[in-house]
Amino acid sequence: MTDTISGALRARPVVPAGPRRGVGIGEVRLDGGFWGTLQETNARATLQHCLDWMERLGWIANFDRVADGTVGTTGEPRPGWQFSDSEVYKLLEAAAWELGRTGDPATEALWTKVVDRVAAAQDDDGYLNTCYGHAGQPGRYTDLSAGHELYCTGHLLQAAVARLRTHGPDLLVEVARRAADQVCREFGPGGRDGLCGHPEIELGLAELGRALGEPRYTEQARVFVERRGHGTLPPIALLGPAYFQDDVPVRDADVWRGHAVRALYLAAGAVDVAVDTDDDDLRAAVERQWTRSVERRTYLTGGMGSRHQDEGFGEDFELPPDRAYCETCAGIASVMVSWRLLLATDDVRYADLIERTLYNVVATSPRTDGRAFFYANPLQQREQGAPMRPDAVNPRAEGGARAPWFDVSCCPTNVARTLASWHTYAAVVEEGAGPDATAVVTLAQYASGDVRVAFGDGELALRVDTTYPESGTVRVEVVAAPVAPVALRLRVPHWADGATLTSAVAAGGADGAVKDAAPGWVEVPGALAAGDVVVLELPVAPRLTWPDPRVDAARGTVAVERGPVVLCLESVDLPDGVALESVRLDVAAGVDAHDDGALVRVRAVGLPDGGTGLPPFASAPPASSAPPASALDVASGTFEVTLVPYHRWAERGPSTMRVFVPTT
Amino acid sequence: MTDTISGALRARPVVPAGPRRGVGIGEVRLDGGFWGTLQETNARATLQHCLDWMERLGWIANFDRVADGTVGTTGEPRPGWQFSDSEVYKLLEAAAWELGRTGDPATEALWTKVVDRVAAAQDDDGYLNTCYGHAGQPGRYTDLSAGHELYCTGHLLQAAVARLRTHGPDLLVEVARRAADQVCREFGPGGRDGLCGHPEIELGLAELGRALGEPRYTEQARVFVERRGHGTLPPIALLGPAYFQDDVPVRDADVWRGHAVRALYLAAGAVDVAVDTDDDDLRAAVERQWTRSVERRTYLTGGMGSRHQDEGFGEDFELPPDRAYCETCAGIASVMVSWRLLLATDDVRYADLIERTLYNVVATSPRTDGRAFFYANPLQQREQGAPMRPDAVNPRAEGGARAPWFDVSCCPTNVARTLASWHTYAAVVEEGAGPDATAVVTLAQYASGDVRVAFGDGELALRVDTTYPESGTVRVEVVAAPVAPVALRLRVPHWADGATLTSAVAAGGADGAVKDAAPGWVEVPGALAAGDVVVLELPVAPRLTWPDPRVDAARGTVAVERGPVVLCLESVDLPDGVALESVRLDVAAGVDAHDDGALVRVRAVGLPDGGTGLPPFASAPPASSAPPASALDVASGTFEVTLVPYHRWAERGPSTMRVFVPTT
Repeated sequence: MTDTISGALRARPVVPAGPRRGVGIGEVRLDGGFWGTLQETNARATLQHCLDWMERLGWIANFDRVADGTVGTTGEPRPGWQFSDSEVYKLLEAAAWELGRTGDPATEALWTKVVDRVAAAQDDDGYLNTCYGHAGQPGRYTDLSAGHELYCTGHLLQAAVARLRTHGPDLLVEVARRAADQVCREFGPGGRDGLCGHPEIELGLAELGRALGEPRYTEQARVFVERRGHGTLPPIALLGPAYFQDDVPVRDADVWRGHAVRALYLAAGAVDVAVDTDDDDLRAAVERQWTRSVERRTYLTGGMGSRHQDEGFGEDFELPPDRAYCETCAGIASVMVSWRLLLATDDVRYADLIERTLYNVVATSPRTDGRAFFYANPLQQREQGAPMRPDAVNPRAEGGARAPWFDVSCCPTNVARTLASWHTYAAVVEEGAGPDATAVVTLAQYASGDVRVAFGDGELALRVDTTYPESGTVRVEVVAAPVAPVALRLRVPHWADGATLTSAVAAGGADGAVKDAAPGWVEVPGALAAGDVVVLELPVAPRLTWPDPRVDAARGTVAVERGPVVLCLESVDLPDGVALESVRLDVAAGVDAHDDGALVRVRAVGLPDGGTGLPPFASAPPASSAPPASALDVASGTFEVTLVPYHRWAERGPSTMRVFVPTT
Repeated sequence: MTDTISGALRARPVVPAGPRRGVGIGEVRLDGGFWGTLQETNARATLQHCLDWMERLGWIANFDRVADGTVGTTGEPRPGWQFSDSEVYKLLEAAAWELGRTGDPATEALWTKVVDRVAAAQDDDGYLNTCYGHAGQPGRYTDLSAGHELYCTGHLLQAAVARLRTHGPDLLVEVARRAADQVCREFGPGGRDGLCGHPEIELGLAELGRALGEPRYTEQARVFVERRGHGTLPPIALLGPAYFQDDVPVRDADVWRGHAVRALYLAAGAVDVAVDTDDDDLRAAVERQWTRSVERRTYLTGGMGSRHQDEGFGEDFELPPDRAYCETCAGIASVMVSWRLLLATDDVRYADLIERTLYNVVATSPRTDGRAFFYANPLQQREQGAPMRPDAVNPRAEGGARAPWFDVSCCPTNVARTLASWHTYAAVVEEGAGPDATAVVTLAQYASGDVRVAFGDGELALRVDTTYPESGTVRVEVVAAPVAPVALRLRVPHWADGATLTSAVAAGGADGAVKDAAPGWVEVPGALAAGDVVVLELPVAPRLTWPDPRVDAARGTVAVERGPVVLCLESVDLPDGVALESVRLDVAAGVDAHDDGALVRVRAVGLPDGGTGLPPFASAPPASSAPPASALDVASGTFEVTLVPYHRWAERGPSTMRVFVPTT
C-alpha cells in the first residue's frame, strides 16, 4: 500500500508517476460559486436520486439475487442492461469522494448499505458480475465484444480507489482486489488472449495498481491497451472494429474514432500506462490523437461525438450542431484524458480544453436541482420537445429536456462522481525535486475558496476570491507561505487576449505592478509571502466565435462566447411570433451592448412567420450569381434578444435552441 | 380474374381503380438512351448477379432446407437476415417484368428454377417463410416488430402480380394466392389483431386483390393500414413507435417520419387502399404528408432519409449532405408513392419528383456494369474510401464506393425490379369514359422509343426521338392515330422556365407554331393525325440551385443542376494539390461556360493545402463584425473544374465529392 500514506487530504482520482499531481480532496475548499454550488447540489440531491432510481429499477437488487442464487432462475428477465452494475459502482465512487470531502453520515450509510450488497454477490474466486456466469446466465466472458464485464470491473476498481484514498482499506477495497486478481488470472500470463469491447478496465487496473502498489495490475492494464487494435473482437452487428477502437493499435492511431466514450476511456488508460511504464511513444500517440481530434472532431463546447448511430466521432469537420451527440460521458472522459496529459506534460492547452468541457458539457447535463440530466448535448434543437415526465425512464438521447433517468443511464452517475471530485482538477502541485528545485503550485481552474498545500517546511495557503465566470477578476491572496520558495502560476485561457496580472507585495497594496498576461501559464513574480495579493483580470466580454470554414454544417453562422462559457439563443427569449429559424444575428451591431455577467443581449433580425417564400428547390436562371430573394433577406424587424449560457438551456421548459446563429 | 384480360401488353405494376393508368410493358419500347441502356444492363447483368450472390450466400437454399425439413435442425445458423426471402421475391418480380418485356429464355429458366424451390417451401396451410415457424425456429408471428414475415409475404405477392400480368396464372401465382389466404385467415376477421413492423404487405395485398379480383385482399390491406399508428407494436430496443410509423394513424399524420422505406411503402399502400375504397380523407392525408415531406425533408436529389441511426427521416430542414442516408430503396419507394398519387390526382408535381428521384437516386445506385450498387446516397463524401473488394459482402452504408452485395441487401434487387419495369412510368393513359370524353395520353418521362396505345377504334402510335437529358429537345411524331380524338400531353418540368412547344401539322413541316410552354402539363394543340410532329424544347442549360435558407447544413453553398440531373464536384476532377474542402465556386462567373451535354465546367478558387490557418475555435475580438481572415478567403488560384452528373460519381475509383459547393 503506497497511496494512503500521504493521507486523505491529498486523495484524488489520478496519481501518476511523474513530478506533477492534482490537489487533493482536502487541499481545496470551495465556497459556493459556480462549481461549489453544483457540488453541493450533487451531494444533497443527485447521489440519493441515483440510488433511488437504481433501487426502483432493481439494478442494486441484482446483486442480492446473485448472492441468494436466484438471479438466473426466476424466469423473469434480469432488470437493466448488461452493464448496469457499473452504475452502482460509479455511484459508490461518487459517494467515496463525497465522504472524503464531508464525512456526511447519510452518505456513509449509503456507502455501507450498498457495499455490503455488492460484496455479497462476489463469487468465491473474485469474479463479480450480476449478468454473467451464474446458473441460467450466459457464461463468463462469452461475449467480450458486448458483454461489458471487464468494463464493469474497471468501474468497481475506480470506486475502490476512491475509497482507499479517502478512507483506507475496507470491504469494497478487498472486493476490488479480489476482482482485479481474478481478471489478472483470467487474462494475464497463461490466461486467455482477450479484451473488453468497452475500455475502462485499463483505467481501473492502472489506478488500483498505483493505489495498492501492485505492479501486476499496471502490467495487466498495459497488456489490455496493447491487445487492442488488432481486429480480434468479434463485430457487433453492422458496427465495424473502429466502433471499439479495435481497428488500429493505440500507438499507431492518428485520431479518435468510433464510439466516443470508448475511445476516450481507452486514451485515458493509455496515458496511465504510458506514464507508469515510461512509454513516451505511447504518450506521444495519445497527444497526437488529442491534437487532431480537438482541431477537427470537437465541438465548440468541447463536446465530442458527432453521430447518434454509433455514439461516435465523425470524420474530420463533420460537426453538425443539430445532430451533435456530445454525450455527457464523453465530455467527462475527455476531461479525464486531458487531465492525465496535463499532469504528464504541463501543456496548458489540456487545461484549456478541460475548462471548455467542464463549463459547456459537464455543467450542461444536470438540471439545477440535480435530479435530471442531459445524455446528449446537441448545439441546436430544431423541434420543441414535450416536457419530460418526472417518473419515466427516458430513451437516452432525445427530447431537448433533461430526464430523471435513462434506459442506458451512464451519465447521471458519471456526473455525480465528477462533481464530487471536481476540485481535484482545480490546481496542480509540482513538489520540487532535489535541494534547489522550486515547488510550483498552479491554479488550473478558478473558483472561490481556499487552497492549502502542505510542504515539508510549511504550508502554502491561498485565498481565492472570484465570481468567475461571471466576472473575469480573480483575486488571490497568499495567506501563508512555506519557508522554501514556491512558485505560483495562474492560467490565462487561450481566448483571453488582453489579460493582465496585478501584483501587490503587501496586503492592501493598491498600486501593484500591472503586467500583460499572455495566454498560457503566467507566474506570479517574486517570492511569495503572506499578505501578497495578485489579481488576474481576464477579459470575459462577449465575443464572436467563427466556425472553421471547413465545418460545413456551421457555415454562415457565428457563435457568441463569454469567457469560458458558450452562449446560445433559446426560442423562449424571442419576441412573440418570431421563429428561431428566421433569426439572423446582426454582427455589425456588436455583441456586448448589454452584458450583465451571464446574459448577453444582441441585435438580431427575424421574419414573423419564419417562412422563406421559396419553393423547396430554388433554381436561379442560368448566369444568375445571387440566390433568389428570400423573405429572410428582408429585415422585417430588428430587435434585441438575450443569449443565455448554453449550460442552462432548457431550464425554462421545452424550447428550440441554437449555439451557431446565422448572420445577417 | 380481372386483370390479364387486357393482355400482357398492358401489364404494369400498379393498376388502380380510377380513370388513369400507366402504360403497359408492351406499350412502350425504349431504344437505348439513358433508361434503355440501364434497363439492358439490368437484364444482361444484374439479375444473374443477384441470383449468384443469393445462391452463394445460401439465401435461396434456405427454401430447400425448409422443403426438406432441415432448416432449423442443422445446428448451424440460417444464412441471411430474417428478411432475406424478400430479396428472392424481388428478384423474381424483376425477372417477371423482364420476361414480359423480352421473353428471354435464360430469364425464363431462372424464373422456373427459383419458383420451383420457393414453392416447395410453402407449408400446407399456405404459410411461407424460411426463418420462422418450423422445427427449431421461432414460432410464426412471434416477433411482429422485427420479424418481417408479412413484409416478405408482401414482396411474394408483388412478384406474383408481375407474373400474373405479364404471363397469367402459374405456380408462383398459386403460391401467392395461398400465402395471401393464410394472411387473411391469420390477421383477418376473427384472427389476431396484429400488423408487421415493416409495411409492404399492404402493397402486395392491394395489388394481388386487383389482379385477382379478390376483395378480401383489398380489405385486409385496408385493415393493416388502419391498424397502424396506435402504438401496439412492441418497441425495438431504443427505437420508438415512430420508427415503424406506429405513433400516429396514417390518416392523421402530417409528415413522414421514422424509417424512410417503411414510411414510404406504407404511404404507397395507403394510396392503393384509399383509391380502391374511395377514401378521399386517406388519400388527402398522404398528399399532405407528401407536400410537407418534399418541402422540408427531401434532398435536392429527391433522396429521403437524413439519418443513419434509424435509416429515417430527420426533422424539418435537417438535411445534412454528408450524413444523408437517402437509401436507394427509399428513392424507389418514393417513386412508388408519387406514381400512385399521379394516377390518382393527375398532379404534375408527382411526375416531377419521380423524374428527380429516378435520375438522381435510382440511377445513382447501380454501377455502369450493373454489378455493384450504392445503398446510401449521400450528397457529400468527406473521406476517400478504399476500393470495394469485388467478392466481399459490404456493410450497407459506408465507403463511397458501390458494392457488389450487402449484409442487408435490399437495394440491388429493388433496383432490378424498378429498372425492369421502368417504362411503365413513362406515360399515363386516360381512356375517355362515356361517348363524348376524349382519351388522353400523357408523356410523363422522356426517352427515345415508341409508344403504342390501342383504343377501341385504332392505335395511337408515337415515335419519340431525344437524347434527353443531355439535350432538352424532345421530338414526338404521330405515327398513327385512332379515329376518335385523343389528346396528347407533354410534361414541362418545374425547373424548365422558358420551354417551348413547336407543332407541325404535317410531317416535315418546318415552320410550325411555337408556343411558350409553362411548367406543368402542356397539351399538343389540335387533333392528332399521322405525320404530325411536335418538338418540345426544354432549357437544360446548367443552372445554380440555392438551398432553402432553413437548411443549415447547406448554408453558404450552391448546387448546379442541368435539366433533371444534379451535378457534383468530384475530387478526381480537381487540379493537382487542390483539396475538395478548399474549393469555392465562383458564381459570378456563371455555370455554363462549357457544357458538352453532360459535363459542365465552372470556375472555382481553391487553396493548395486545404488549410485555413485558423485555430480550431477562432474568436474575433469583441465588436469585430467579420470573421478573421482565413487562407480560404484568399483566391490563391482560379481554375475551371468539371462538374459531373451525381448519378455517375465514384465511377473512377475512390474520391471525395460534394453536390453543394461553398460559394466565393
